Amino acid sequence: MDTIEILGLVAASLTTSAFVPQVYKALKHKSTADVSLTMYIVLLVGLILWVFYGVYHNSLSIILANVITGILALTMLILKLKHK
Amino acid sequence: MDTIEILGLVAASLTTSAFVPQVYKALKHKSTADVSLTMYIVLLVGLILWVFYGVYHNSLSIILANVITGILALTMLILKLKHK
Repeated sequence: MDTIEILGLVAASLTTSAFVPQVYKALKHKSTADVSLTMYIVLLVGLILWVFYGVYHNSLSIILANVITGILALTMLILKLKHK
Repeated sequence: MDTIEILGLVAASLTTSAFVPQVYKALKHKSTADVSLTMYIVLLVGLILWVFYGVYHNSLSIILANVITGILALTMLILKLKHK
């Protein structure tokens, strides 16, 4: 694997794992008042479309990154609706 | 442009524009207590790496989507630090 593809994988890992501390914070503090509900709805729809795009292109990295981010975004959405 | 590439563009537009309502909410309510600082730091680093990846691959769509999301993430980061 060349350097640029490793860079791509690191980039994907970071933009996906970025949502972990947000989910952790929401679970710990049981508060999501400042978190935008619209953000997570729009994000989730976008991520689902990315998964279809990845399936069509047989790209495991696109599928994987977006499925994981999608699970984290869905968790935030559920927590947001629960705290409403 | 074929259907799958249009799907990709729609997906990119959604995952980028998702951050607009979050920035709007933070500006309107002047509160970001429930928003994770770590999330936006990690996200911003990841987005910057995606821009380098896009530059290397001469992909305007990767560059554009990640620059715009990066500006929105940076805005959230500044607001979060300001409200601290």
